[in-house]
Amino acid sequence: MAELTGNCLIGQSGGPTAVVNASVAGIVSEALNHGCIEEVYGALHGVVGILNEDLVDLAAESQQTIRGLRHTPGAALGSCRTKLKRPQDIERAVEVLKAHNIRYYFHIGDADSLESAAKVAELAKAQGYELRVVGVPKTIDNDISVTDHCPGYGSAAKYIATTVRELAFDADATAQNDVVTILEVMGRGTGWLAAASSLAKRRDHPNDPPHLVYVPEVAFDEAKFADDVRRILKREKHCVVVAGEGLVDKDGNYVAVEGGEAGAAAQFGGVGEHLRGVVESQVGAKVRVARLGVAQRAAAHLVSKTDADEAFLAGQAAVKAAIAGESEKLVTLVRGDGDHYTCETGLAAFADVVGSVKKLPREWINEDGVSLNFQYYRYATPLIQGEVAVPYENGVPAFVRLHAASVDRQLPGYEA
Amino acid sequence: MAELTGNCLIGQSGGPTAVVNASVAGIVSEALNHGCIEEVYGALHGVVGILNEDLVDLAAESQQTIRGLRHTPGAALGSCRTKLKRPQDIERAVEVLKAHNIRYYFHIGDADSLESAAKVAELAKAQGYELRVVGVPKTIDNDISVTDHCPGYGSAAKYIATTVRELAFDADATAQNDVVTILEVMGRGTGWLAAASSLAKRRDHPNDPPHLVYVPEVAFDEAKFADDVRRILKREKHCVVVAGEGLVDKDGNYVAVEGGEAGAAAQFGGVGEHLRGVVESQVGAKVRVARLGVAQRAAAHLVSKTDADEAFLAGQAAVKAAIAGESEKLVTLVRGDGDHYTCETGLAAFADVVGSVKKLPREWINEDGVSLNFQYYRYATPLIQGEVAVPYENGVPAFVRLHAASVDRQLPGYEA
Repeated sequence: MAELTGNCLIGQSGGPTAVVNASVAGIVSEALNHGCIEEVYGALHGVVGILNEDLVDLAAESQQTIRGLRHTPGAALGSCRTKLKRPQDIERAVEVLKAHNIRYYFHIGDADSLESAAKVAELAKAQGYELRVVGVPKTIDNDISVTDHCPGYGSAAKYIATTVRELAFDADATAQNDVVTILEVMGRGTGWLAAASSLAKRRDHPNDPPHLVYVPEVAFDEAKFADDVRRILKREKHCVVVAGEGLVDKDGNYVAVEGGEAGAAAQFGGVGEHLRGVVESQVGAKVRVARLGVAQRAAAHLVSKTDADEAFLAGQAAVKAAIAGESEKLVTLVRGDGDHYTCETGLAAFADVVGSVKKLPREWINEDGVSLNFQYYRYATPLIQGEVAVPYENGVPAFVRLHAASVDRQLPGYEA
Repeated sequence: MAELTGNCLIGQSGGPTAVVNASVAGIVSEALNHGCIEEVYGALHGVVGILNEDLVDLAAESQQTIRGLRHTPGAALGSCRTKLKRPQDIERAVEVLKAHNIRYYFHIGDADSLESAAKVAELAKAQGYELRVVGVPKTIDNDISVTDHCPGYGSAAKYIATTVRELAFDADATAQNDVVTILEVMGRGTGWLAAASSLAKRRDHPNDPPHLVYVPEVAFDEAKFADDVRRILKREKHCVVVAGEGLVDKDGNYVAVEGGEAGAAAQFGGVGEHLRGVVESQVGAKVRVARLGVAQRAAAHLVSKTDADEAFLAGQAAVKAAIAGESEKLVTLVRGDGDHYTCETGLAAFADVVGSVKKLPREWINEDGVSLNFQYYRYATPLIQGEVAVPYENGVPAFVRLHAASVDRQLPGYEA
């Protein structure tokens, strides 16, 4: 493979994770190791920045800033939910890449967002413009099928498990009467995040909180839920419930959907308040609801070191793969076979990624439908190991902001 | 003052804080320094444990456990909301204390809960039974009037400020269109916790998130709220709102109250969802609501070292005061006058504590009604300084549980 010399561009899309910027740091620091990559640019707000030619010079950032990205939440380059659909948008994107001699495009996103990257890669190829496009996975939802797990999941899992253990100590202390504590977590259509709450249990203490975990993979039944709560209250005096936002009933209808009044698409969420109503009306217990919301994907003060390291590694791997000639591939995380957890990176073709959703395997969920078995613990426990010492300033975590020096525009403006 | 020899008893009541058990640790370790204190007992679930003669032997706990209390959330001895009201209950409580030769009673709680302790002290005095009762303040709400600040507040403030800074990074990255992020925090009738969110701002960056902070000390006006949100969205593209659960309108009515269907007293809460409705209907922006709930008083993984140390110190001070002959006093925290933050303990009479609520001073809130000025920052910044390295086991914080060896009952059972 002949060496391809030119510039590289990084874009981010979708909901951030606590470690998504660690992947940016991995890409930048690896790119600077290779002479064939001349400039290292970032696109502000993903494909939106490409269309608008809003590019920034990442090589001009200080070492401190790039290091600080490893523990900074949000998406440092800005994110987007925009997809390239219209042919003229895809043409414009390729035109912008050409204008800046971008030969390597690294896209950090979830499975859906690879579609746009794939379209850009295809058009460039059709035009005979040599461009290598490699994706880096990110999502707290852990629902990308081709990778053992996804960067971002381990940190959200650690945060949720920690919060549930803390909530449980509080609930246990204050539960003189029946109290039901309900925690609503994210996860779209899968139960990976709700399942993570069970990592709050001590080993060999299956009755530890969370007592009831509801995941979208198991059809939600209101009467069974009320029975489950009554059973736990009888045994424990209080009950800790964790519910995924995307619960569905046996007919596949969402248990709770909210928002959308402003013309936006309906948002998941509201399951916690819905379950409150069921407990209050059918069980007659006092209910406390917490909803972590975006906090669970932004909690950089409590990331998993394993996860942060793997996010960085995935960024590095993307650069190495592209330089080795790969394109239209997504970096994956591949778990070793041994008893001792090891993880290395692999590659999957874009075509195998888009549109597939990895659900929590039904055989990892116990017969009761509200707890996880050893297979889940074996899978998830290694992913939340280790802590990262985040620097603090004035008592709150010190995060970095990119200096974001603009790259001069080469093209006329574009009406996206 | 003649030395009073006998046993001591510790009780906890009210909502826990992330550092309330540090006060237990302070009391236990200080008590063991003094020969006049023979046994160190704990009452399970505060006055409920006294009435039921449910006492445990704290001196029998391992050193590791007592040390571990310094970073364990919840109330290790169990909490309660029960007050001693009936004369026979107060008599029973004194009878139990006498039966176990309790000469020192340390009560860790908020202002309200001191009433029961005061009644017990008064009856013992009337009966000629020498008993010294000293309180240790705790509440995340920071609304106890006689103390500069209250153990528990600094840690909740640090957690809220950290969460808001993290949420803000996420919101800033994803806000391509108008997005309003609403965080509901606790605080009952005062704005101390909502105000703490403003510690997320960088120094000299008044436009940093949180953009709008609503506290119960300022009458809530829906039209002004909608205007505030519109103004921020115009300036920032996204808007981070923090709202205290106990907001009231100009007539003193709660903006949102929920729960109570199970016959319990109405709970605060639901402000976040209420504000969502206002934004969606009047402003027409997309809204994300998070509600930390009990997590904000249980987040032991992110306590303020200053707060944890002061909670421990307050426990030690209670023992020293009682041994010096003080009774019916609450330990207070007294801030030094200098520019450099210092804190020592003082004492306040129970009579001066009960029934008084410390509000956020109106002059610490800016004219706009939605931001805090330098007086608040000067007050609160020192309280969130420092981090505590919590031990982890299997990726989640390792908390301790008391062995809780029962003390033999001396009396017949009691129907409370």
